Amino acid sequence: MRFVLSVSYDGTHFSGFQKQKSERTVQGELECAARQIFGAETKIAGSGRTDAGVHAEGQVCHFDAETNIPPKKLSACFNRILPPDVRVLKSAAAPEGFDCTRNAKRKTYSYSFYYAPSELPLLERYAVRIKEKPDLQKMRQAAALLVGEHDFKAFCASGSSAKTSVREIYSVVVEERMSAQAAEYTVTVCGNGFLYNMVRILAGELVAVGCGKQEGITAAFQTKERSALAKTMPAKGLKLVSADYGIPLFGNAAEE
Amino acid sequence: MRFVLSVSYDGTHFSGFQKQKSERTVQGELECAARQIFGAETKIAGSGRTDAGVHAEGQVCHFDAETNIPPKKLSACFNRILPPDVRVLKSAAAPEGFDCTRNAKRKTYSYSFYYAPSELPLLERYAVRIKEKPDLQKMRQAAALLVGEHDFKAFCASGSSAKTSVREIYSVVVEERMSAQAAEYTVTVCGNGFLYNMVRILAGELVAVGCGKQEGITAAFQTKERSALAKTMPAKGLKLVSADYGIPLFGNAAEE
Repeated sequence: MRFVLSVSYDGTHFSGFQKQKSERTVQGELECAARQIFGAETKIAGSGRTDAGVHAEGQVCHFDAETNIPPKKLSACFNRILPPDVRVLKSAAAPEGFDCTRNAKRKTYSYSFYYAPSELPLLERYAVRIKEKPDLQKMRQAAALLVGEHDFKAFCASGSSAKTSVREIYSVVVEERMSAQAAEYTVTVCGNGFLYNMVRILAGELVAVGCGKQEGITAAFQTKERSALAKTMPAKGLKLVSADYGIPLFGNAAEE
Repeated sequence: MRFVLSVSYDGTHFSGFQKQKSERTVQGELECAARQIFGAETKIAGSGRTDAGVHAEGQVCHFDAETNIPPKKLSACFNRILPPDVRVLKSAAAPEGFDCTRNAKRKTYSYSFYYAPSELPLLERYAVRIKEKPDLQKMRQAAALLVGEHDFKAFCASGSSAKTSVREIYSVVVEERMSAQAAEYTVTVCGNGFLYNMVRILAGELVAVGCGKQEGITAAFQTKERSALAKTMPAKGLKLVSADYGIPLFGNAAEE
């Protein structure tokens, strides 16, 4: 029988989602917990990998197991074993034929950064400090260029094995929040799929444009050259917000 | 010559502000940095102590030193030496006769908690999970009872050496923020002074009232008994937001 999980983690002390021989990973922790719960090796798949240091609010996973534990109770079983930086938020029986990796219709990521004259210890864990105050309108104008179906080849770190670099971006929302000590920014991107490092590269380009650098997105779509765009932002500002499958996975949609 | 600092820290890995012989403290780190900058033992005072695990956005400190370094540049000198979980945000020459401990006219603290069915790894560092969803209106009604000048003896952990337990609370603001995964709450309290554990005790009482327990504040003012109120909340949800002196300490008020 197949089960589906919604999983959240603080990526700070993980070498990413995907299992590695001698590194601490989210998949490794989940499979270790599953082995104790089901008494058998259990492979746990994710909607996608996240890199070392990247966080997740709603990673979606699936696995196959034989068990009499009611599906809704599985989350509590995992949480009794898992370390505190990873938690199963919801568990359910998977819909017929469900595959969390292949069936994802869209994903949402957010990238957080802030401007302040010096580092702020209470923001540093989940956001990246930039050294100039960016212009919100310039960032929003550049963000609008990203929406739609485009060849995002230039927005991809080298070494990617993706068959096609065409993706559709449904929305890019740039929010600003002013506090006494910082101007905080979040870029939330929703699309049908993402290339390797794509969100960190597009966030870097929006920051550069906001800080007065010439917009490189138009050229990047034309030349497909990574060099048209600004540098990749660090992992710790990135968060996988959700993976959506077009159907409610954990009971009725209103609950989700 | 006397100098004043605005200091922020993530309290997670500190045994509080006040220096202790064999524990890692904020005062200890600041004095260690000052010794390297000025080449002499330098006592650094704070507007007040914060307990182990308590965070600060704007702790105010002062110290005396002989130096040719321009006052505004001192923050960068400290930050080159300090560990990443404590940062000097601003530095300036102190006003005539300034004492950060004695002159504080009011202080602001915030307490953060959230309701979610399971722990959320991305909120756990700076907020405390509660197991029932509290009623916002009930919390706000109870918060209003705290405003004004009262004898807060019941809101004080035993062992306090304060001469009087009368304090004036200027405002208690309870905010709610709903996300896909949690109901997040912040209680922000501003007053002319606070007793030991006072904010953690009053936050605990507001949570209890919000979750349907009978309001104990009225009885606490009458009986002055700690037992009239709910339990003290954990340290990690508490943050010293600011200490105010009625004068701008770091240049013009608009900049602060």
